[in-house]
Amino acid sequence: MRWARFRSSDGGIGFGVLEDAQITEYEGDMFGASRPTGRTVARGACALEAPCTPSKIVALWNNFHALGRKIGKAPPAHPLFLIKPGTSVIGPDQPIRRPSGYAGKIVYEGELGIVIGKLCKEVSPGDAADYIFGYTCVDDVTATEVLNENIDFAQWCRSKGYDTFGCLGPVITTELDWSRARVITRLDGAERQNYPVSDMIMPPQELVSRISHDMSLLPGDVIACGTSVGVGSIKDGSTVEVTIDGIGSLVNVLSPGT
Amino acid sequence: MRWARFRSSDGGIGFGVLEDAQITEYEGDMFGASRPTGRTVARGACALEAPCTPSKIVALWNNFHALGRKIGKAPPAHPLFLIKPGTSVIGPDQPIRRPSGYAGKIVYEGELGIVIGKLCKEVSPGDAADYIFGYTCVDDVTATEVLNENIDFAQWCRSKGYDTFGCLGPVITTELDWSRARVITRLDGAERQNYPVSDMIMPPQELVSRISHDMSLLPGDVIACGTSVGVGSIKDGSTVEVTIDGIGSLVNVLSPGT
Repeated sequence: MRWARFRSSDGGIGFGVLEDAQITEYEGDMFGASRPTGRTVARGACALEAPCTPSKIVALWNNFHALGRKIGKAPPAHPLFLIKPGTSVIGPDQPIRRPSGYAGKIVYEGELGIVIGKLCKEVSPGDAADYIFGYTCVDDVTATEVLNENIDFAQWCRSKGYDTFGCLGPVITTELDWSRARVITRLDGAERQNYPVSDMIMPPQELVSRISHDMSLLPGDVIACGTSVGVGSIKDGSTVEVTIDGIGSLVNVLSPGT
Repeated sequence: MRWARFRSSDGGIGFGVLEDAQITEYEGDMFGASRPTGRTVARGACALEAPCTPSKIVALWNNFHALGRKIGKAPPAHPLFLIKPGTSVIGPDQPIRRPSGYAGKIVYEGELGIVIGKLCKEVSPGDAADYIFGYTCVDDVTATEVLNENIDFAQWCRSKGYDTFGCLGPVITTELDWSRARVITRLDGAERQNYPVSDMIMPPQELVSRISHDMSLLPGDVIACGTSVGVGSIKDGSTVEVTIDGIGSLVNVLSPGT
């Protein structure tokens, strides 16, 4: 199942299952009890929204062997993460906005996102799969010159927490063999990242289990699994496309204005 | 006005205005349209909850001159912060829980909390007061041995983000002359912190303005203004009491179990 949220032409927000060029609309709670409304919406007749509205994105650093080797960092013993606030989230085809007063470098990071399906607190790795609703594409956007602006304090939450810096979508796929998936990021159509998810230092079940011992995860929360090699900067007006087979392509343009 | 949320004996959650030993119950939205229900609740007949349920706590580091001097850090040019998730929040008299599997040091930090009243994005310092609903007491709890466990990445969000590590309350006071307020923290009754809020590097209006340029702040979000000198560790079973005149005393015990 490929779950999507959408805004229809009358401005209302709905959700449903995307198949081919059509969304079968559901009502209720995507993560709880839901049922088809009997209506369908043509994909072309609506705009997709972010497929979930997380209370937080738990965003990992140094979770891929290839990137860790490149930057000379040892694999961590526990997930290293920051929190991107829910206010950072945008969906497919929505513009990334350059922060007002910031003229510096803005960077894309194509990532796999794990979407939590139910309240998840201190679950074992063996039980973690029950708490994973599905997977989505993430562009974990960063204002890199903010990150190390202050020598005493790395500003992870600030540099990655701006409104529109948490791109999610286009859908949540409930069936994904992540061990065979690749994350492909294109900048203005040119491939910049193409890495296997299987190179992860800590795979999804272990991430969910370990992070659920750090904080409760809520339905719709997203774990952004971290990126690998090929990160680069986005010029104003450029298009970033993060593609994972089985999920689809998440496309966002960096808009210079606010 | 001193706004409180409470759990009545039938388990329902309400909110209202606390005066002396009585809560005048309101209905609606504490931050929007609300009106008295006509009922009152004796303070002793209910348990106070956290006075708001923030989507995020923006928690400051190095925002007091006295502590900055002590640790040898220059005053920052912009607020330095991490995000504590909404899941970390507890209210008055609720137990702080030691994280499972963590036997290390746990530290209290008594702080002033700014409670946001309405959607706040890129507001000027001059307008910021309009977006401040009021003030509360914060104990910004930290598992300090987690913070620097990994040499490559300071784990601010993890060490401060555990469930129960964001203590808020007992009420939100809408009228507070913060420039005359002091934050007093007692550990098992012994005073450990007693510092003037006026020693802040960046005062409330400037914090709200600057942080609102980093991310949208939502009604009920809390900015924890950072602590000053006198931080120390909490032993299992010990009681931390954060008091600010005009707000009241926020009391929480560190419970060894989960």
